[in-house]
Amino acid sequence: MSLALDAAAQDLLFREAQTANTFTDEPVTDEQIQAIYDLVKFGPTAFNQSPLRITLVRSQEARQRLVTHAMGANGPKTLGAPVTAILSVDLDFHQKLPQLFPHAPGIKDAFFSEAASRETAGTQNATLQAGYFIVGVRAAGLAAGPMTGFDFSGVDKEFFGDGKQKSFLVINIGKPGTDAFSARGPRLTFDEAVTAV
Amino acid sequence: MSLALDAAAQDLLFREAQTANTFTDEPVTDEQIQAIYDLVKFGPTAFNQSPLRITLVRSQEARQRLVTHAMGANGPKTLGAPVTAILSVDLDFHQKLPQLFPHAPGIKDAFFSEAASRETAGTQNATLQAGYFIVGVRAAGLAAGPMTGFDFSGVDKEFFGDGKQKSFLVINIGKPGTDAFSARGPRLTFDEAVTAV
Repeated sequence: MSLALDAAAQDLLFREAQTANTFTDEPVTDEQIQAIYDLVKFGPTAFNQSPLRITLVRSQEARQRLVTHAMGANGPKTLGAPVTAILSVDLDFHQKLPQLFPHAPGIKDAFFSEAASRETAGTQNATLQAGYFIVGVRAAGLAAGPMTGFDFSGVDKEFFGDGKQKSFLVINIGKPGTDAFSARGPRLTFDEAVTAV
Repeated sequence: MSLALDAAAQDLLFREAQTANTFTDEPVTDEQIQAIYDLVKFGPTAFNQSPLRITLVRSQEARQRLVTHAMGANGPKTLGAPVTAILSVDLDFHQKLPQLFPHAPGIKDAFFSEAASRETAGTQNATLQAGYFIVGVRAAGLAAGPMTGFDFSGVDKEFFGDGKQKSFLVINIGKPGTDAFSARGPRLTFDEAVTAV
């Protein structure tokens, strides 16, 4: 046993958890999403920049607008989920740095005065946060169905007309439904993925 | 209690875990790193592409080469860690797709024949895996010190001369040392980060 984390938690978060393609009708409450957020918000980002924004698609009207930008099977999957989260980068995350990184407020202008540097750093750090969020969904006893097969520039125009948020991942969230899981694919062995120097 | 994950695990992974800036001399064993990998390898990536590669910097010689590319305080922090992981994207991850996604081997050529599409997807998915890996380091009862302040093109030339791996994050790993932690920065509230539509 080389891990401190108990075996049940290992199973819940990684070993038995799988991407779900179908969901039951059981609702996912705001309280559940808030509990997930209040856990994973503590995951680290550079300068605590916390650039991830989450748009919860709950209304039928918004869901229909979202699926017009879905590719292939992602449309039907998304129509069948009780709640769907659009994950995006706040391209103006630097405006909140004096609040989030109060002991060095000069970071905002020193590193992030240019839009290109904000987009690069914001995308990287929001994607790390997306990893934490997927773990958090599982920590709530729910299944996540993350999808990159969307026309994200279309999603941005549809939901973020001001150009200040850039979506990069859509995640269906709920209890797994009938035939929810594909066979788990093989993973790379330790020696294929890890090298020591 | 809206989470299925037990409170001790919540604390271990998120609530009490913090980025460490100093470390004790206690070694981190290969068995610990393998246990971390064998847990977090199950985290989802698009088409199971699993593009993350991990280079464990253990020798003094490699550590000295790494810190020549560190910015600011990241050099001394890295010199004081028992092991340091360079996280990189395998830009040729598509070569392993027939192995990793055996039920649709055509994905390799349909989506990833171009280097630019591999770099975009590989970077996104390896960064998701970096999020899982940070959680995994904590699951092992260790502290992570992730750093983006490196000259990554210099790191690539130094360690990945063939141009087939692109580094994007360096993580010190070990038991926290003296004055290891900065004060935790405030996080965005749920209402600042999450919107429902």
